[in-house]
Amino acid sequence: MALIVQKFGGSSVGDAAKIKHVAKRVIETQRAGNQVVVVVSAMGDTTDELIDLAQSVSANPYDAAREMDMLLTSGERISMALLAIAINAQGANSRSFTGSQAGIMTSAKHGDARISEVTPVRIREALDAGDIAIVAGFQGFNKDSKDITTLGRGGSDTTAVALAAALDADVCEIYSDVDGVYTADPRVIPQAHKLDQIDIESMLELAAAGAKILHIRAVEYARRHNVDLRVRSTFSKDPGTIVYSTKPEGSKMEEPIVSGIATDKGQAKITVIGIPDVPGKAAEVFRVVAEADSNIDMIVQNNPTGVDVTDRVADISFTLPLGDLGRVAGALEAAKATLGYRDLEQDADIGKLSVVGAGMRTHSGVSSTLFAALAKAGINIEMISTSEIRISVVTSSKQLDDAARAVHTAFGLDSDEEATVYAGTGR
Amino acid sequence: MALIVQKFGGSSVGDAAKIKHVAKRVIETQRAGNQVVVVVSAMGDTTDELIDLAQSVSANPYDAAREMDMLLTSGERISMALLAIAINAQGANSRSFTGSQAGIMTSAKHGDARISEVTPVRIREALDAGDIAIVAGFQGFNKDSKDITTLGRGGSDTTAVALAAALDADVCEIYSDVDGVYTADPRVIPQAHKLDQIDIESMLELAAAGAKILHIRAVEYARRHNVDLRVRSTFSKDPGTIVYSTKPEGSKMEEPIVSGIATDKGQAKITVIGIPDVPGKAAEVFRVVAEADSNIDMIVQNNPTGVDVTDRVADISFTLPLGDLGRVAGALEAAKATLGYRDLEQDADIGKLSVVGAGMRTHSGVSSTLFAALAKAGINIEMISTSEIRISVVTSSKQLDDAARAVHTAFGLDSDEEATVYAGTGR
Repeated sequence: MALIVQKFGGSSVGDAAKIKHVAKRVIETQRAGNQVVVVVSAMGDTTDELIDLAQSVSANPYDAAREMDMLLTSGERISMALLAIAINAQGANSRSFTGSQAGIMTSAKHGDARISEVTPVRIREALDAGDIAIVAGFQGFNKDSKDITTLGRGGSDTTAVALAAALDADVCEIYSDVDGVYTADPRVIPQAHKLDQIDIESMLELAAAGAKILHIRAVEYARRHNVDLRVRSTFSKDPGTIVYSTKPEGSKMEEPIVSGIATDKGQAKITVIGIPDVPGKAAEVFRVVAEADSNIDMIVQNNPTGVDVTDRVADISFTLPLGDLGRVAGALEAAKATLGYRDLEQDADIGKLSVVGAGMRTHSGVSSTLFAALAKAGINIEMISTSEIRISVVTSSKQLDDAARAVHTAFGLDSDEEATVYAGTGR
Repeated sequence: MALIVQKFGGSSVGDAAKIKHVAKRVIETQRAGNQVVVVVSAMGDTTDELIDLAQSVSANPYDAAREMDMLLTSGERISMALLAIAINAQGANSRSFTGSQAGIMTSAKHGDARISEVTPVRIREALDAGDIAIVAGFQGFNKDSKDITTLGRGGSDTTAVALAAALDADVCEIYSDVDGVYTADPRVIPQAHKLDQIDIESMLELAAAGAKILHIRAVEYARRHNVDLRVRSTFSKDPGTIVYSTKPEGSKMEEPIVSGIATDKGQAKITVIGIPDVPGKAAEVFRVVAEADSNIDMIVQNNPTGVDVTDRVADISFTLPLGDLGRVAGALEAAKATLGYRDLEQDADIGKLSVVGAGMRTHSGVSSTLFAALAKAGINIEMISTSEIRISVVTSSKQLDDAARAVHTAFGLDSDEEATVYAGTGR
């Protein structure tokens, strides 16, 4: 008997009809001879409605972070109870559990807690009794404060993966309105095709590079705990994409050189011009950025120029989340005298294109194919960074989609059929 | 420093503006030098909306009783978190607690659990830290099943009284949109006046007799644990009505002969005609009623008639909740052969009028005043029952309001001013 964890996002349980549909689907999985644990998000817009309510009684509701967690966790409580009621009405037995009841222990940080330990004793009991166990996603419990916490972005996916790891599940299925992982975002590249499988490290790189199908936190957790994921649609029977943590035994399959392409328009670039080329100056710049609470992605420093060693200056460029641009630029302006640079440039109109594939480890020639395709399409490259299995380039935001199409074609990823429409998976 | 428990019903926290108003009021109580525990119901129609949702995924949602409790308790979770957020926004510190976190332990019966134990350790901690403690009404926790329970009708009032008892609070204030306990329902008798005080036994009789201002369960709990209640309005500064469990020390106050009048149109009458007058037959009738899960209120048996001892027959009349009438009549019809009666009469159009007052214990003449007033108003009395401090009569439902007005006047309860409008207090 296999143990399967199934996670349904907010759009999959958005109304009564969808909840009944999910109930039917879950029961079918159990009747096929599996033990089933279901993780659910809050229904459709519930979370936004609760946030609106909070903002109507307080200008800064997140100041009461503990209470916001108490408020928002009621969303999953509603959806999981309704799903349990629907399952029971369709003739199967189920029990719903809050994060705390399911043994999801977390750090104490309200609104962005990390899972520290999972002790799913009650889930095991429910499964052993032949019941379907339903668990509220996105929430946990801090042992010391005895308070309810929420996991922040990607929380429900992470709940599902953490339960799958703790229960040693055979697979963790992530359901949404997308039927799998694609070679690129089909809204940008209609020729993108669905992958039958992808290794988890490539999935991690794709998620980090901006693919929205799975949250990077959940992918990281799955990789660390060797959990196999299956990404599939709530509304079709398509088997979706398997994201494997351990290569199937006896598999002779060669890893594809390029699995997919991700694009990200959510980044910006700052260039610090004419900073003295003395040891420790770059570190000072990045200390200012870190104190402004931002994460840097790519960094480029040009060759220093200057007549004399003592007045040689350099330029440092780096990318960061678009939302942090104003804050970080302000912090650097404020530190201008200390840092001693000449000028600061901000660029909000950049795009990042990443090519990801586990086969890059053993194949050369990927970068030359990439650069040739971009040159042929007349795309100017502003920055480059690489990992073992990824090459990313920064272009102007206007050229990003053209660049993605050219590269998708160059690596032979184009399909003959148009893909179904792609969408996010919610929290 | 006094410790005050304040309970706010669903209409008191019905929208953002009302929640902000309640927050202000609670903070004022704390700033006046008190420790404050607040018990809240779900916002306005939340509970009905959740029940509608459940009915949209299941024809019989209450079959999944555990899950209905999980669902419905999210209503209080939302209102208490919002109140905490509003209080914090207005510059005071507060923390909200679920029934389980507040230490409200109950029996295992979902939908209608009884409070078995209250261990408000975390509430004490919050109060000692100078915080306002907010507790979800209507919900608790069963130790054995580790499941969340709800308390059924009158649940939030009962939560407040139980916490007041466990914390040895100075008073438990029950807020609603009514500014106190009246001598009668002001919708029926506009001359009814608000009582400044009433003893808890009279309050219990009034609640049992149909007064809706306080739920009988909460009043019983308060009487058993010597908790003083104050019934008052969320929307006025009126001190309301004190319901005292222990007569104020040194009080020379005489108890009023009649404190108030309650009416109840929610009862029906069944008469079993021509049942053999042999020992055990009445018991058989009431066993059938009990097995149909109904509670009988008043019972009258007439003198048996008949030529011979062996064929003497009697008539038995009793009242029961209107909603049980069809079910109980059906059960009696089904048992007609066994019981051996001749005929069954049902009457859904009855009304019960009760006159309540602790002074009746030591004063005679109440019943003669009552019957004289009813006779003068031309009201026909169908049944009579009495306790130490109450006389109830059954009339036709059509005559009930006239009867109440006549009796209210006869006992000198009429006020010169018209009362503000009366309404229920929700769960």
